[in-house]
Parts: sequence; C-alpha cells; structure tokens
Amino acid sequence: MSRKRIWINARLGPSLSGTEHLQDIVVEGGRIAAIGAGLSRDGGEIHDCDGRLVTPAFIDSHTHLVHGGDRAREFEMRLEGASYEEIARAGGGIAASMRDTRGLDVDGLVAQSLPRLDALLAEGCSTVEIKSGYGLTVETELTMLRAARALADRRAVRIKTTWLAAHAMPPDFDGSKSDYIHEVAIKGLDRAHAEGLVDAVDAFCEGIAFSAAEIEPLFDRARALGLPVKLHTEQLSRSGGTDLAARYGALSVDHFEYAGAEEVAAIRASGTVAVLLPGAFYMLRETRKPPLDLLRQAGVPIALATDCNPGTSPISSLLLTMNMGAVLFGMTVRECLQAVTANAARALGLTEETGRLLPGLSADFTIWDAASPAQLVNRAGFNPLHTRIFKGSVQNG
Amino acid sequence: MSRKRIWINARLGPSLSGTEHLQDIVVEGGRIAAIGAGLSRDGGEIHDCDGRLVTPAFIDSHTHLVHGGDRAREFEMRLEGASYEEIARAGGGIAASMRDTRGLDVDGLVAQSLPRLDALLAEGCSTVEIKSGYGLTVETELTMLRAARALADRRAVRIKTTWLAAHAMPPDFDGSKSDYIHEVAIKGLDRAHAEGLVDAVDAFCEGIAFSAAEIEPLFDRARALGLPVKLHTEQLSRSGGTDLAARYGALSVDHFEYAGAEEVAAIRASGTVAVLLPGAFYMLRETRKPPLDLLRQAGVPIALATDCNPGTSPISSLLLTMNMGAVLFGMTVRECLQAVTANAARALGLTEETGRLLPGLSADFTIWDAASPAQLVNRAGFNPLHTRIFKGSVQNG
Ligand SMILES: [Zn+2]
Ligand SMILES: [Zn+2]
Repeated sequence: MSRKRIWINARLGPSLSGTEHLQDIVVEGGRIAAIGAGLSRDGGEIHDCDGRLVTPAFIDSHTHLVHGGDRAREFEMRLEGASYEEIARAGGGIAASMRDTRGLDVDGLVAQSLPRLDALLAEGCSTVEIKSGYGLTVETELTMLRAARALADRRAVRIKTTWLAAHAMPPDFDGSKSDYIHEVAIKGLDRAHAEGLVDAVDAFCEGIAFSAAEIEPLFDRARALGLPVKLHTEQLSRSGGTDLAARYGALSVDHFEYAGAEEVAAIRASGTVAVLLPGAFYMLRETRKPPLDLLRQAGVPIALATDCNPGTSPISSLLLTMNMGAVLFGMTVRECLQAVTANAARALGLTEETGRLLPGLSADFTIWDAASPAQLVNRAGFNPLHTRIFKGSVQNG
Repeated sequence: MSRKRIWINARLGPSLSGTEHLQDIVVEGGRIAAIGAGLSRDGGEIHDCDGRLVTPAFIDSHTHLVHGGDRAREFEMRLEGASYEEIARAGGGIAASMRDTRGLDVDGLVAQSLPRLDALLAEGCSTVEIKSGYGLTVETELTMLRAARALADRRAVRIKTTWLAAHAMPPDFDGSKSDYIHEVAIKGLDRAHAEGLVDAVDAFCEGIAFSAAEIEPLFDRARALGLPVKLHTEQLSRSGGTDLAARYGALSVDHFEYAGAEEVAAIRASGTVAVLLPGAFYMLRETRKPPLDLLRQAGVPIALATDCNPGTSPISSLLLTMNMGAVLFGMTVRECLQAVTANAARALGLTEETGRLLPGLSADFTIWDAASPAQLVNRAGFNPLHTRIFKGSVQNG
C-alpha cells in the first residue's frame, strides 16, 4: 500500500469525447495524494485508464445482505395467486427469513451471503452497509453482525454494520412491543456495542412494525453509547418516524415514499440523507414515489441503495438500482451517480473517508468500459466494469 | 463432439429439495441421447451436477443487438427535462442509431455488439435472434446481417437473423413509405436472401412506422422466398398488424400490449407465438399490459425477450427480463421459464432443434447455482450461472 501508483488518462467529467476531462490520480499509502491534469508522473507505477470513465467506487448504504435462505417459493406462490394469508399460513414472510437465519451460525451466514456480496463487488463497490434484523433474539442478532464483520475479512471491502433488532416483532416473543424494545433491542445493543459490532442503530417505524414512541428509548440508548441512528420510515404510510429521526440527528431516513413537505423540512434541518430504495418500490409494485422535487428544492442529499433482502428487494446490483432510480423515480444521471457515491458515503458517516475522488480520501474508485456516467445508468442487466480499485489496490481486471 | 458425456444428478423438476427430480442427461454427437433416472453411465465422460438446477439454455427471441453507438445521452437529456422535440433537434431518436450504425463496417459492428452478446451468453444463452433495421438502406441493412452472422463465428452461439428493413422510414429517403417498402425492404430482402443472410422477415406495424397494407407486399415476397415472418405490432396502439401476421402464419407477434380478444383469437388460429418485451414496457414507463389472461385462456404460447436495443430497451439480460415478466406482467415462474426456452424456440422456428431437454435435440443446457426456477426469477441483478453447455460442449465454469 505504500508504493506510489498513478492512474493516468482517467475520464472524470461528463464528456462523451475529447480529452478535456482526462486527469491523473496519484495514490500513496492507499489514499489519493493528488488528482488533476499536468501532475508529475515521476516515480510512480503507471496504470493507464486509456480515457475510460473513472468514478468513485460505489457504496451500498442500505442492505439486509446477511440472512439465511430465500423467499423465492413465496414469490412463486404469489404469482400463482396465493393470498398473503395463505403465504403466512405456509410459514412465509419475515418469519421464514427469521427461521432460516436463526438456523445458521456465523460460518453458515457468511457462506450464504458471500455470493450476494460478490455480486456487488463485481460492480465496483467499496463499501456495503449490512443490517441485523432477521434473528430477533439477542444472540441471533449478534450472530448476524458477527457474520457481517467476518465478510470484511473474506473480501477487500469496507463493511458498516447496523443494529436493526427493531425490524419486526418476532412471533414467538412473549411480551409487548415495548417489552421487545427493552429486552431485545436495547439489551442486545449494549452487548453488541461492547463487542464492537455496531456502527449505527436502525429501526422500522411503520404500523406493521414499531411506532416512533416505541423506538425512542432505543435511540436514547444509541445516543448514550455515541452511536448514530438511521430509520426505515414513511415507506407504506406516513408513519411519523421522520420527526423522531430528525430529533436524533439521524444519518439517514430510508424509503421515504410517503414523506411530504414537513418531513423534508425536518431532515433538511437535521442534515439527514434521504436513502431511496427503488428496488423495493419495483418489487412491491408501489405507485407512491418519494418526494423528489421537494428533496431537490430543499437541497437534501439523496442516496440510492439496493435494500438487498430476501423478501421485498432480492436485488444485488447498484447499476440496476441506479437505472431504477432514473426510470422509476425520474432521477437524473448525475443524481444517480451522487446517490451511490458521495451521498451514500454521507448516509454512512463516511464523508471524510470515501465516496469522492479528493486528496486525502481512500483510493476507492472504479474504471469502466464506458465513456460517460449516462452509459452506466441507461442500461440494465449489463456490467461494464473494467477494474475495481480498493484502498489503492487493484482488485481485478 | 462425438464423445459420450453424461451429466449426472441434474435437478430438472421444480422441487427445492429431495432427490426425486435428479436425473442424468446423456449427450452424444452434440445432441441429447437420453434423459432420465437409472440410465446406464457406462462409457461416458461423467460431469456431476451435484443436484444443481439444470434448465434448457435460454433463447433470446427478439433483439436489435447489432447496432452502432448508444442513446445514453438522449436518456440523460430526457431525465433533465428535454422534450422529444428537443431531442429530435439534437439529432436523437432512431435517426441517431441509424447514423451510428451506418458509420460502421462489419468489423466495427461486431466489435460494438460482442459485449452485449457476451452479457447474454454469461447467463447461459444458446440462441440469439438479431434483427437488421438501423441501416435503412439496402447496403447498410446487409452489413448489419453480415455482422450478425459473423458473431456466430466469434462465439459458441446459434444466431437467427431477421430482415427488419421495414423498421422505420429513414429521414433521408426520397419517396413514400410504399416506395421505401419496394425499393429498400423488398429489393434488399432479395439480395440478403440470395446471400443467405435471412432466417425470417419482420416489420414494425405502428402509426409511427408502417401500416399493415404497406407491409403486405413485403410479406408476399417473404412467402415467395419461403421465409417465415414476424411482426412488431400492437405496441403503442391497436395498430391492426395482428390480422396481417396471422394471415401469413407468422412465427410471432411481438410487444402485443394493445391486443384484445380478437387479436388473441387470430394468433391462436395461426399458431403464432406472442413475444412479450417487458424491458421496453419498463423503460418507456408504459401502463398498458399485454392481455396475459386472454393468452392463457387461449393457450397461446408466450415468449419473453430482451428487445435489446439502444433506445427503448438497452437491456442485455434474460434473467432480468424474466423477473420483469413476473413483477410487471404477473407471469408465473413456470411461464417465465417456458418463455425463454421452449416458447422462445418456437418463436424462431427451432422447436425441433433446441429449447427443451428431449432426446434428439441439441444439447444446449445450463447448470445453475440454484435449486429451483423460482430462485432464478425472483432475484434481479444477480447471475447464479454455474456452467453453460452448448451443443454438448462445456463453455465455462
Ligand atoms: Zn431495509
Ligand atoms: Zn424490437
């Protein structure tokens, strides 16, 4: 990592042709030392980008990538006309993922999760957020985050972990939602934090999950531990979670389809990122779109993430997610690229670490067989990755 | 190709577990010699599928994969609020693809098309249909189909070519639509056929393209040459092309969103396949779905294809297309799989050659790191291919 490497003739601008946007990226000690045109190339190991597009490496800022099993059979049954009740009776839904996840130890979870992680890395990801939330007991939630941490030992990737015990009420819990928050979500958080397993704390604020009032004690504990919070909110209804998230200075509010002007004003004031998840919108055939124009007018940073999960978003591609952000939500190409780089970094508290090509930041970038970001966003089911660079090291290509 | 090879323990049924659906596939001379359980394994080179799912290799029955350039900048402009008029003034639309395609020779078209073909092959495709239709002069249409044929020399794939000079009126043609059909589409067809470049004849029947009456003389010539026909029809309006297609016993009618009971009855009688293209439906944000229930009730075979093209469907994944068939059109898993195998073969007149796992057919199949077809269809942006077998030869994995 201490060798000086220079990637020359990198196309950094939006131009489809010409040389005006070709620049060099000088890397030392795994970090970007300099970037620009006309820099000295002395003493560096030269890598020629040949005018290819170079972007910051992608960041998936919202995933449930660690889990056991899949829900493909449930998907099949729905297409064959089964009702949600019939699927629930057949043991489907989040309870199915809970059972399949509880049945695996750290190694088992790692083995099932690696192919999903590899799919993201194959598109140049540097950083993946991974949530707990399918164990729903203290021990099994800890196991999920231990698996998430173990993934970082298996691949060249930065993993950010999120404690999401407040994802759903486990059907076998003997007590109220408030009891669950105190007995499992908060007590487990203390243990997970003591073990160094937690980078942020999240909850699902929705009628079918937890109310803002029920989540508040959990966020109090997060604050006491010095951990940032995030919140799944305003996905299926105007659930009222945004006010809570803003009061706790949340890194992000996620989904956000049912948010209006009030919610946008709240997160503008709190400096919170809106993480939009078009994959879940697509898979659920939702029609209510997030308030893109209000977010733009307020200057709220917008991120896009896969929401990779076995039920509502079995998607492991940020290229496809960008395409859906454009096609389904009407985001511009520039917004889509920001949404999986700089703004995704911000949603994870990594603004000063990765997500942009600036001196001092980690040398995490991707060389594409493409000439413009529009070519990345326009297509679907196609991966023009040329080379992935993580912390200044070439990962493939 | 003459060696006997046996793929053992292939999972051919829909079951997620158990051994009841494990069978052996015996291959000789590039063809399936036998398939079943309890067959003799003597004298064969053994390949163990280890209980993995095996499906017929996929077939993409409708593509415009050979073309020059892309329309990513146009996509970007639309997202930034540009009107269709502004894009047309900036030289966009099909005219842009025409210019970019006319600017390339066979080698240039092959070079630009290979990455798209490779993306399809990476998901286990055996067979890809490729249309002309961006040259729109006799010479440039011939060049496109020469490039399509040349692709089959570069990769282990079966290419079926389709003459689609009647795709659009070139803006520089001096004459009526009828003149164009006679001067370019029909005269060019004669030359292309003489050169062995044509497997089928297609046209775009739509207000913005050609009417059924204008297309009819072209179909007459196809019939005289002994060539089967196909038709892009009922995509943006009830254009009346289905009756024409049925009268000429078309292999397929493609798009078909605006078809009703009358059109379905017509193609049922003519034995025509309905080729649905959810990628274009998705990219264009269409809301009118093809008449799936009517097609089911009539027993019309349904295929799914990428429609891979630079404007309305820049998609090069049949896995994603299957997912869209399920999510956007409500097709079942079984229907989606049939739609890219047996029914796609039928749409290309290849029923007795590929698309099913039956003795006598070409040994074109795919081994997946999956246990059920539902796992292929449920996910998006993920490719669990293990091994592609084309004409009995292992292509990778
Ligand atoms: Zn989520
Ligand atoms: Zn087409």
